[in-house]
Amino acid sequence: MPVNPNASIEFTAFKWVPEFAQGLVRDLRVRWALEEAGLDYRVRLLGQQRPPDYVKEQPFEQVPCFSDGEVKIFESGAIVQYIGEKNEALLPRDPQSKFRAIQWTYAALNSVEPAIQNVFAVTVFYADQEWAKLRRPGAEEFARLKLKRVSDWLGDKQWLEGDRFTIGDLMMVTVLRNLKHTNMVAEVPNLAAYQKRGEARPAFQRALADQLAVFAANQPQPEGAAA
Amino acid sequence: MPVNPNASIEFTAFKWVPEFAQGLVRDLRVRWALEEAGLDYRVRLLGQQRPPDYVKEQPFEQVPCFSDGEVKIFESGAIVQYIGEKNEALLPRDPQSKFRAIQWTYAALNSVEPAIQNVFAVTVFYADQEWAKLRRPGAEEFARLKLKRVSDWLGDKQWLEGDRFTIGDLMMVTVLRNLKHTNMVAEVPNLAAYQKRGEARPAFQRALADQLAVFAANQPQPEGAAA
Repeated sequence: MPVNPNASIEFTAFKWVPEFAQGLVRDLRVRWALEEAGLDYRVRLLGQQRPPDYVKEQPFEQVPCFSDGEVKIFESGAIVQYIGEKNEALLPRDPQSKFRAIQWTYAALNSVEPAIQNVFAVTVFYADQEWAKLRRPGAEEFARLKLKRVSDWLGDKQWLEGDRFTIGDLMMVTVLRNLKHTNMVAEVPNLAAYQKRGEARPAFQRALADQLAVFAANQPQPEGAAA
Repeated sequence: MPVNPNASIEFTAFKWVPEFAQGLVRDLRVRWALEEAGLDYRVRLLGQQRPPDYVKEQPFEQVPCFSDGEVKIFESGAIVQYIGEKNEALLPRDPQSKFRAIQWTYAALNSVEPAIQNVFAVTVFYADQEWAKLRRPGAEEFARLKLKRVSDWLGDKQWLEGDRFTIGDLMMVTVLRNLKHTNMVAEVPNLAAYQKRGEARPAFQRALADQLAVFAANQPQPEGAAA
């Protein structure tokens, strides 16, 4: 359990988010990587109203923003890669294996996630809007094509590059989780099994429990409940 | 001029693409990084019909796919980072500067590019479709917000992290170029000047000329012109 108020590593997370976003917020990736690496960390919690100076740390005012001594960075992909470079368990050292893992981190975030975010947009955020209803079949078809590409590559391998779990798998599994309100991953058996394998890792389970515990502790009270 | 048929580094590119995509295809990023680093390379050209085995190299059947001896990778972000690790000119060595540059590479590809690709979709690919007409104002508004975030961060700095050009700038400039059919970047003066600064670099100019020269040499002939 690496939550440690005296840790060198700190990152930002939200105090609370609506239920549809719980278990999806991107600090989950950082928590998971730190649990896999066995590195202690502390969390700086933010409300929806960000502190006035936060934009100087994170230009998009998102979480997570990460620091470890003099290294201060944002973007979950870069943070997870930084953690991988501290710990060979997540990012092999030989150049080919290292850059295959990094390549999958980028692939998850740039070749797969945008298609999945567009499905999320038309089925959750903008579901009631006319354009979203018209676009939904096309957005789902495009995302299914991306899933098929990853599935075809994966075949019967355990992880994207074979027997060894890397930051590329960590990122891809968290990207696939953004479809949890659909059955699109379940339609692709080897991909569904791959996602389950990732989520079954003890480090993932601890990371998810720790993110959800923060939201449970900061659940807004219904109006008047405090009276 | 590092195109060299005996080079160790090889990557894939397209023989020809329609005019709207010329100067935007992602091998431009790799050409640019190699020109900045002064590394020789050769290009393997692909038609729209990919070779049957290409999917085993590149699961999404896109370009560029890159090799340098035993290192074989895809995803332009990973390739540019690999080139950066070979040459300090593009990626500083101290951990804070290194990961600030990597962070901006991820930011360009995951926090900015998806919003720009959605503008490209509603204004070019799907411009005639009803959903795209309805979505266009919202897609443009969202992309403008992303541009404002980058502009606010940039301020009057030369590059995203100050005086030193890195792979993060290389990636951000190529992402901004995907809006060249709009005036959205021109509306943000410091960002337009930043993009122009990137495009004025001799290495960019050589990379762009080399990509466009391939398309010019492989321009499809009108029906009957060969008669």
